Amino acid sequence: MNSSAPEQLESYLAGRWQRGAGVEAELTDPVSGAVLATVSAKELDFAAALDFARREGGPALRAVNFAERAKLIGAVADVLVANRARYEAIAVANSGNTKTDAAIDIDGGIGTLKYYARLGGTLADKQFLLDDKPVRLAKAENYQAIHLLAPRRGVAVHINAFNFPSWGLWEKAAVSLLAGVPAIAKPASATALLSHAMVRDVIAANVLPAGALGLLCGSIGDLLDHLGADDVIAFTGSSDTAARIRSRPNVLGHGVLVNVEADSINAALLAPDAAPGTPTFDAFVKEVVREMTVKAGQKCTAIRRVFVPAARADAATEALAARLTRTTVGDPRREDVRMGPVVTRAQQDAALDGIGRIAAEATFVCGTKDAPKLDGIDPAKSSFVAPTLMRAKDASARAVHETEVFGPAATILTYQDEADAFRQVARGGGSLVASVYGDDRDFLARAVGEIGAFHGRLLMVEASIADAHTGHGIVMPQCHHGGPGRAGNGEELGGLNGLRLYHQRVAVQGSVELLAALQAKAAAVH
Amino acid sequence: MNSSAPEQLESYLAGRWQRGAGVEAELTDPVSGAVLATVSAKELDFAAALDFARREGGPALRAVNFAERAKLIGAVADVLVANRARYEAIAVANSGNTKTDAAIDIDGGIGTLKYYARLGGTLADKQFLLDDKPVRLAKAENYQAIHLLAPRRGVAVHINAFNFPSWGLWEKAAVSLLAGVPAIAKPASATALLSHAMVRDVIAANVLPAGALGLLCGSIGDLLDHLGADDVIAFTGSSDTAARIRSRPNVLGHGVLVNVEADSINAALLAPDAAPGTPTFDAFVKEVVREMTVKAGQKCTAIRRVFVPAARADAATEALAARLTRTTVGDPRREDVRMGPVVTRAQQDAALDGIGRIAAEATFVCGTKDAPKLDGIDPAKSSFVAPTLMRAKDASARAVHETEVFGPAATILTYQDEADAFRQVARGGGSLVASVYGDDRDFLARAVGEIGAFHGRLLMVEASIADAHTGHGIVMPQCHHGGPGRAGNGEELGGLNGLRLYHQRVAVQGSVELLAALQAKAAAVH
Repeated sequence: MNSSAPEQLESYLAGRWQRGAGVEAELTDPVSGAVLATVSAKELDFAAALDFARREGGPALRAVNFAERAKLIGAVADVLVANRARYEAIAVANSGNTKTDAAIDIDGGIGTLKYYARLGGTLADKQFLLDDKPVRLAKAENYQAIHLLAPRRGVAVHINAFNFPSWGLWEKAAVSLLAGVPAIAKPASATALLSHAMVRDVIAANVLPAGALGLLCGSIGDLLDHLGADDVIAFTGSSDTAARIRSRPNVLGHGVLVNVEADSINAALLAPDAAPGTPTFDAFVKEVVREMTVKAGQKCTAIRRVFVPAARADAATEALAARLTRTTVGDPRREDVRMGPVVTRAQQDAALDGIGRIAAEATFVCGTKDAPKLDGIDPAKSSFVAPTLMRAKDASARAVHETEVFGPAATILTYQDEADAFRQVARGGGSLVASVYGDDRDFLARAVGEIGAFHGRLLMVEASIADAHTGHGIVMPQCHHGGPGRAGNGEELGGLNGLRLYHQRVAVQGSVELLAALQAKAAAVH
Repeated sequence: MNSSAPEQLESYLAGRWQRGAGVEAELTDPVSGAVLATVSAKELDFAAALDFARREGGPALRAVNFAERAKLIGAVADVLVANRARYEAIAVANSGNTKTDAAIDIDGGIGTLKYYARLGGTLADKQFLLDDKPVRLAKAENYQAIHLLAPRRGVAVHINAFNFPSWGLWEKAAVSLLAGVPAIAKPASATALLSHAMVRDVIAANVLPAGALGLLCGSIGDLLDHLGADDVIAFTGSSDTAARIRSRPNVLGHGVLVNVEADSINAALLAPDAAPGTPTFDAFVKEVVREMTVKAGQKCTAIRRVFVPAARADAATEALAARLTRTTVGDPRREDVRMGPVVTRAQQDAALDGIGRIAAEATFVCGTKDAPKLDGIDPAKSSFVAPTLMRAKDASARAVHETEVFGPAATILTYQDEADAFRQVARGGGSLVASVYGDDRDFLARAVGEIGAFHGRLLMVEASIADAHTGHGIVMPQCHHGGPGRAGNGEELGGLNGLRLYHQRVAVQGSVELLAALQAKAAAVH
């Protein structure tokens, strides 16, 4: 190898940094196309890596209580805070992030670690989580049952998406480690540079017990074929990949638990009462544009479908277009740039393809079905997609409800009345999140009843919280993350509820004396 | 068709009784081999059946509140109570049940309906379930989040196992109906006679709204290919069938939620302190024999592996053998018979095959690898399996941990010390239930910590509750039912927690005023 060859990112498995054979993928700068690093996990011993995590990491984590594990998580956050400046530069170079984009990813990861460090502290010296009050089972009062959550004994495999190399890594690891379950994280190859840098720092700082956290840079190969009944897979990515994981014979055969966060065609809904010129209408416009442009629209929670009353369609379209056309697109290293490229040329192709499919049933308000031409940027090497707003021609449009464009694109759809709005929102087939903008509180409450079952999260924006809310696309660790149907039926975060994935719910039937002894070792989930 | 042809059991779909084409399966008396009825669902319109449930059943159920749906469930129980005598005769004829076996199935179903009718009454006039206290998300105190459970808008498909044509049907239907989700139940063909008779009575009594409950007698055909993101599959049966359901392209493609209760190689563990002659030792012997013989061992929760301290192996073996040899096997219509046949000759073949595989690494204490010869019963037409107790030759035995014999068979394994016992129990790869018998409460608490993660339920028997407990294999509606890994990772029953499968957890972020309005419409799960 000559000295100018890009660095290969090593994997941290079985307690040591390991180099795979050859090159499986190149990591590039999506502005210049320059190769920044390569990854390969070829010929690495995944079975040994999993065994090491189970044999060393699990017992070490479970040997200490919740509060002590919470301190470990806090120490990880401290290491990341100390190295934050380096991470930002990596995110700009490898992910095409603006500084704002990078902050969402990096600080989102650190914030989630800190949140679970605080929350874990409240669980003190307990061994279990207590899920329920004791229940009577028979006439005899001395025989009852409690429900405990017992930490799983296996290893967690965290398969992360390319859009959040920091947040995706740490939101999964924080919860897994707090539960006492060791994790092997596999970042998406395209943007693994940041995950690798962070894990390298954490390992070098020696703040976690051996085997508690592994990192797999490269392809996952046959790793899933070495998992057993005690192990957990937490996956974030496309529903196609999710289906392949779920239907893998070894996963089905051993009943490996699989949690999925997948495609989601999220909606924003402007309520019938929200008139142009009101703070609520403005909050709607601001949020749709923010969701389209932050991280160049590469968020699984981003707004893809924008529902407005038919009578307000022109006003809403104009207001959105006015803001979008003011968005400066280009090299995120430039101070005036508000939106960078998508992460790879493959993602650019996929996004433009999706835009083309939706556009067949829509008209363009902003953007086209082609990549934009930008000053000083080579279109043959970069991967930009312009902010693209479409408007569905009529209610017969289908692709808009079925195609997730993972880029800065959204489509306006009109509705005739409340029932029509709720029916159309549900056509997404299950989503992570929807946001509703209006000041008629009865309407907002009805909306929760009518579209709640199709979502994992709802953000209801009234004028009184227009400036206070945390955003449609921002996943707060306090709140449930995961949606039904197309979104994968996953359940992550949501405070202590997030620990469920790494615990087995077990009913214990026995004497009230035994149950009292167990309750003393358990912290209440609620 | 001549008058002597057996009755074809019709399906109740799209609000009417429908007859399939031809014959898909014959239902027999497992003592005589006589054909009692046939089923076929060929050429029935499953898409229309599902649409009817979604269009008619769902809205009708959700138009009334929890307390009103609870009354519907209570009315179903009343219909079944009124017809109970007929059901017992069917269970004896079609399932080979003794009266005791039939009571577990029939009264278990009625009892679960009554339990959820009572529990649903406590939810009063609420629309949602409230899963959590409000949580702060930002500095602003007027912006917070709550977690609601919102009832799903689709239809539930309940695929039941042959061993509980009553309990399996109603434990699923009770929870689904209380949640406001219409259900189509598909009983296993071999024993569908009882499910059919019960649903026929309930429909004739007109106690449920149209579309709330359907019945599919026959093969499921392409029904699962018509399900969408809002629908739910709840399956009980073999892990092979579960894997086929889970990997079906339409199920994966739409993210249809699947709950599985599958194979389980459950354990009983005699604690080191439980000496022969003590009430706890006696409770152990009694429970193992009961689990082996009740319903001829055809319970997903039955004890398959019996762990005893090496020093007590002979005493335990003798005590179990003494009781087993007193079990009278034969035609369950005879008053002196304590155990009948398994349900079909195919099940007999499967059970004997499993016994043969385990016996290759074990010795027989009671029973053999062949079907028993019984007075007055034709071995070529009946499907009996003798109570079969084996003892593993040594710790290298594997088949005993991996083979579920769905019949009256169990295997004794010895352990050297506590750690060895816990390790061996875990080799089941995830089970529905284990029971532990001992009076050393510290040991019992440690056992919960060590084997809890591998089970959905633990029964801890001390002398003080030896006569009061509800049994290793009896699923109480108050308690979680479902186990990790091989057992399918399902979650059923467990009081209000059972409603989760039919609800979507949704975080609602909004103004404290809106959240208060929603809380007023929600009943707390905890």
